[in-house]
Amino acid sequence: MTTHCAAVIPAPHQAIEIREFPSPELQPGAALLRTLFSEVCGTDVHLWHGKLAGVPYPLIPGHVSIGAVAALRTPLRDIAGQPVREGDVVTFLDVHETCHTCWYCLVGKQSTRCPHRKVYGITYGADDGLLGGWSEAIWLKPGLKLVPIPAGLDPETFIGGGCGLTTALHAVDLAQLQLDESVVVLGAGPVGQSVTALASLSGAGEIITIGGPDDRLEFARRMGATTVIGLEPSPEERAGTVRGATGGRGADVVIEASGAPEAVIQALEMVRDGGRVVVVGQYTDHGTVPLNPHLQINRKHATIRGCWGSDFSHFHRAVAIAARHGGRFPWRELAARRYALADADVALLAVERREVVKAVIAVHPSVAPAPASR
Amino acid sequence: MTTHCAAVIPAPHQAIEIREFPSPELQPGAALLRTLFSEVCGTDVHLWHGKLAGVPYPLIPGHVSIGAVAALRTPLRDIAGQPVREGDVVTFLDVHETCHTCWYCLVGKQSTRCPHRKVYGITYGADDGLLGGWSEAIWLKPGLKLVPIPAGLDPETFIGGGCGLTTALHAVDLAQLQLDESVVVLGAGPVGQSVTALASLSGAGEIITIGGPDDRLEFARRMGATTVIGLEPSPEERAGTVRGATGGRGADVVIEASGAPEAVIQALEMVRDGGRVVVVGQYTDHGTVPLNPHLQINRKHATIRGCWGSDFSHFHRAVAIAARHGGRFPWRELAARRYALADADVALLAVERREVVKAVIAVHPSVAPAPASR
Amino acid sequence: MTTHCAAVIPAPHQAIEIREFPSPELQPGAALLRTLFSEVCGTDVHLWHGKLAGVPYPLIPGHVSIGAVAALRTPLRDIAGQPVREGDVVTFLDVHETCHTCWYCLVGKQSTRCPHRKVYGITYGADDGLLGGWSEAIWLKPGLKLVPIPAGLDPETFIGGGCGLTTALHAVDLAQLQLDESVVVLGAGPVGQSVTALASLSGAGEIITIGGPDDRLEFARRMGATTVIGLEPSPEERAGTVRGATGGRGADVVIEASGAPEAVIQALEMVRDGGRVVVVGQYTDHGTVPLNPHLQINRKHATIRGCWGSDFSHFHRAVAIAARHGGRFPWRELAARRYALADADVALLAVERREVVKAVIAVHPSVAPAPASR
Amino acid sequence: MTTHCAAVIPAPHQAIEIREFPSPELQPGAALLRTLFSEVCGTDVHLWHGKLAGVPYPLIPGHVSIGAVAALRTPLRDIAGQPVREGDVVTFLDVHETCHTCWYCLVGKQSTRCPHRKVYGITYGADDGLLGGWSEAIWLKPGLKLVPIPAGLDPETFIGGGCGLTTALHAVDLAQLQLDESVVVLGAGPVGQSVTALASLSGAGEIITIGGPDDRLEFARRMGATTVIGLEPSPEERAGTVRGATGGRGADVVIEASGAPEAVIQALEMVRDGGRVVVVGQYTDHGTVPLNPHLQINRKHATIRGCWGSDFSHFHRAVAIAARHGGRFPWRELAARRYALADADVALLAVERREVVKAVIAVHPSVAPAPASR
Repeated sequence: MTTHCAAVIPAPHQAIEIREFPSPELQPGAALLRTLFSEVCGTDVHLWHGKLAGVPYPLIPGHVSIGAVAALRTPLRDIAGQPVREGDVVTFLDVHETCHTCWYCLVGKQSTRCPHRKVYGITYGADDGLLGGWSEAIWLKPGLKLVPIPAGLDPETFIGGGCGLTTALHAVDLAQLQLDESVVVLGAGPVGQSVTALASLSGAGEIITIGGPDDRLEFARRMGATTVIGLEPSPEERAGTVRGATGGRGADVVIEASGAPEAVIQALEMVRDGGRVVVVGQYTDHGTVPLNPHLQINRKHATIRGCWGSDFSHFHRAVAIAARHGGRFPWRELAARRYALADADVALLAVERREVVKAVIAVHPSVAPAPASR
Repeated sequence: MTTHCAAVIPAPHQAIEIREFPSPELQPGAALLRTLFSEVCGTDVHLWHGKLAGVPYPLIPGHVSIGAVAALRTPLRDIAGQPVREGDVVTFLDVHETCHTCWYCLVGKQSTRCPHRKVYGITYGADDGLLGGWSEAIWLKPGLKLVPIPAGLDPETFIGGGCGLTTALHAVDLAQLQLDESVVVLGAGPVGQSVTALASLSGAGEIITIGGPDDRLEFARRMGATTVIGLEPSPEERAGTVRGATGGRGADVVIEASGAPEAVIQALEMVRDGGRVVVVGQYTDHGTVPLNPHLQINRKHATIRGCWGSDFSHFHRAVAIAARHGGRFPWRELAARRYALADADVALLAVERREVVKAVIAVHPSVAPAPASR
Repeated sequence: MTTHCAAVIPAPHQAIEIREFPSPELQPGAALLRTLFSEVCGTDVHLWHGKLAGVPYPLIPGHVSIGAVAALRTPLRDIAGQPVREGDVVTFLDVHETCHTCWYCLVGKQSTRCPHRKVYGITYGADDGLLGGWSEAIWLKPGLKLVPIPAGLDPETFIGGGCGLTTALHAVDLAQLQLDESVVVLGAGPVGQSVTALASLSGAGEIITIGGPDDRLEFARRMGATTVIGLEPSPEERAGTVRGATGGRGADVVIEASGAPEAVIQALEMVRDGGRVVVVGQYTDHGTVPLNPHLQINRKHATIRGCWGSDFSHFHRAVAIAARHGGRFPWRELAARRYALADADVALLAVERREVVKAVIAVHPSVAPAPASR
Repeated sequence: MTTHCAAVIPAPHQAIEIREFPSPELQPGAALLRTLFSEVCGTDVHLWHGKLAGVPYPLIPGHVSIGAVAALRTPLRDIAGQPVREGDVVTFLDVHETCHTCWYCLVGKQSTRCPHRKVYGITYGADDGLLGGWSEAIWLKPGLKLVPIPAGLDPETFIGGGCGLTTALHAVDLAQLQLDESVVVLGAGPVGQSVTALASLSGAGEIITIGGPDDRLEFARRMGATTVIGLEPSPEERAGTVRGATGGRGADVVIEASGAPEAVIQALEMVRDGGRVVVVGQYTDHGTVPLNPHLQINRKHATIRGCWGSDFSHFHRAVAIAARHGGRFPWRELAARRYALADADVALLAVERREVVKAVIAVHPSVAPAPASR
């Protein structure tokens, strides 16, 4: 019997183990992916810490991945109707089973809140099969939405952008940026870096990225930040710097991508009256912060938008953006820290300790042989 | 010399006094209004308590008023270019001196945040002249925006709607209601009542008004609420009732018009995922409340809009709405509690103690004689 | 073998025939509906005239229908997850097979332009089975979106609104009406009548319905029109009347629901500078009309939106609106002209000759016995 | 008495004359500008041909200009409140006397349709004074909105962008471009070139500019076009090329900036179903074109927006964009063809004959002496 190795979080806080799984029986419409790269991101740390609700441990993490089609049961097609063939390098939207029959899908048109959606590497568990990317092979269930990697997009650039780029695109869409508007980006991690790049790509004026440490700020400059601010100055000082760079008014748009709850309040202090705040960094419950509704919402006349998840449109466009603009923005360098599958625990620790902006599990780097069989 | 009596708040917390003021010298473009009615609203209580910044005491309160033109220096025209003549009954936008030259007016297009705007009865003081409505006469400075009361709109209906109706209209505009969407209104005071009416007028589906006491809830039903909830149930119980009336999801739209800071958090608990919250009640600083950014903003995928002030478009349309729909919604009854100018202190106390939804200073009720001269 | 009778258009311009069809074999997820009412609308006339592309004759017309569930293979649920049982009275979205896998569904989010969608009574032919409403029974294919008729909504009110109400709701959504805005409705047929009602329900100010003959205009008044204009005055005179009722400016919003190509140009003449025009009546190709881009688009600074088809959100909300507001707007009377299935040809002629606003095929009116078997 | 020379169109079709005008008496708030550069654009050709209504000949053309403040009566300030001093290089919004008191300004919020607005060089005539830019000096009337040229923006880059850049910015705002959307630009003149640049600056995906002759298309590539199409292929062939570059669908956005009426119809043929068309090129009445409402609007489910004029927000941001991005986009080269004031007639002919994309009247190039006095 063919088997594939995968890294597994047995339960919250437990050490990652490498386990073997049988190759899935492919139904019509299914496929098997030989993994090239899979991502390690902040969400994986939260998964390890047991901070997300509804996760069926044991778990094979890895929600954004890229690989080569190793086996197909029946012909597959992408959204343009083009055939996907064995050997093609593809990625796929981690969200599956969005139902298209519930109120949120059909009436509210908020499919990221569909109660039936499942997410590879997060809400599918290892008992469900090879449904996470930290694995030699990934089972692409029927109906999963594939995106072929276009000619000219190297896999490293794609995985360097990864889920941070898709998330950032959704957030920047919600910000409804107009040309020359000023933007503050809170956070210099994977999402903050891509928000910075996409604000620049959108023709923003001043782009002020706030975070740390210094090498991340330096990278943010290369992503398009016109000003960077570290975390040594007090929040008041940082807000003062923002006002100084924006005619005394505060920024037209602030995008919170740091994950610290107090950053949401800082965002409200930094946005100009009548401006917009997008909250995209709060994917885990870190408790409450004090909000002054009079000063920070009502009198500000501000708009605040929460941004949860992404749908296929964001993912599809993120791939196109990485392909078209990968030469202008150094997403590729975010994929520089690669770890073998056997070192997934080391990769996770590096992300937990913020030693790297992002870690990549390089399962079968591009010159890799066919999936191992045992 | 002609003089006019006006009620004056000498300083925060001091007793109201009736004082005499000389009739203003009318420049070209100015006019004198013989006051029919002026409003007493929650803002006036805040002014008495000294809760608003930048108020130049002594103060003649009264920001929304209606009267008859008693004297004109030069011909005036309304926005349609029609002449305004002596004897015409008119109201006017309390906001004046919006500059049309600053960044907020010209680029941000957020004129309610123009730093130069002045407000009758709030940021003009008694030393500036007869620039508040609790007075026998009001000085209409050049450039003030007049709105003639159309045929068929009785002054009581207009003043019953008053500033609450204009504020509610701005809030409902920001809510971008679609037909059949569910709405929760937090607060059953003047703004909450008009939000309820305008939600009904907008073709909302379920309209759930939450507040107290019971007579206000009963009135809210007449304004169009399909369900009302008092304040005896706990916030969790109220949120449960809202979910029960909205397919388990929470409301499409929640409009916070109560003024209690914790109501903003309750609004975020009551809105459905992907819904909209408008915060219009927080006109005074009552401190902070604990906000959970993960649960209440990010994961909710909600939009929150602060609503500060109103501009001429809201005021103009509010008059038109009162004229067209005054028979359907009982705004007129909100003007039922009238007080003589000499009893302005009693009126203010009645509002402070929430004995009335709204009090009206009836200076020269419709059959009144010409402005008193002494 | 059980069979059901259905009215069939054999080919364009040919006489309608009543034919027998075998009862469908029900797959899991399928059901059989005993038809109560099905609609005859302008589209059916176009189908008879062969004016629509891609129609697979012979055809069982009838895209909006209502009926009682007569047989079920497996349990069905509505979008709220509630079970649908035998005997329940339901309607269903005529559009089926929207693919949720193509660019239009997933990226463009314009599912009404999905190339895979099929429509009961229009793009499914009689050779595909009982997939039109002019039939004793309708085959509900798996995945079809059902909407149970809520308590308190009589079937006649629903079918009186019918596809015109759903179409009108989509158009009024696109118009983004604000309270007190003026609206011109071009056309007094089923769509125009419901646009008039929904403009009123949305709190529009002046609502001017233009069309004929007089009894339709009289009905439009009952639907909420504040002014009606017949077709005897010239287009210039009608535009003059519109300007007279809108402060000389033209209407804030014009919704074209007449189907006459020249009405699109008239709409552009009647809308105010900076206003909005929704084009919803042009479902058939009637050729070209002369457009002046300078005067009618560029200098007008107007927005024009084409409105094609409806999705489930419109249909679902249309049922809710009919249920909630059926007492206020006389949709029920639009279903007054009922024809037996055997008289479908007479019904179609009555609609073609504009003798009735709408005709209804009453297959098994509410007291009807179980579906006839032969 | 001090006088200033200016170029004057005496009447439609008459030869341009150089006339002398007395220096204006400066009221408080007024200033005199020593002209550096003034633009010659397509509108000036239309003015010469007598194609615009309401123009009070004789006329000093030149609506977008840049100059140095030569005299001031009282201190002036920009919108940030910063003082403007003698010698400062400034530009100004050509639109003046927007009234802030009419329905369009206050309620419709469409100030570009304010009936009271006056435009330098277009609706102010020579009899009104030095109110056009083809002149040694320009009279800045009180209340005119000045924009200081920021450090780092050379006057040639600003005037190279000129009114085309401001107009393009308004059009691109209306297009509501999202990252990676495809854009077709119809027209390769000054507006089309800046639309191309701003689409690129906005992060559009494919940018297809259509026009001629070849050198303009080559320039469009430098402005950011990814594909260019000349006018030799038929409209059908061009539409086919657009579809080929956009997955067979047509473009997400088409911006018509050519001025040819038939281009509006071509735009509707090139836009994808559910896409957006902005019509910004039709500033003159060139008659009608045949429109098919069924195929080109209704079934397209498209949105079409007319774009008339610009307001201060567009002008202010256009200056900021030219300052920030003048190194990336070669606006400066559009100002390469300069003509002395005495050669204004030659400049106008060059624009009429499309020999140049744009001509610039260089009155006092940057090293120029103080305004000539005679």
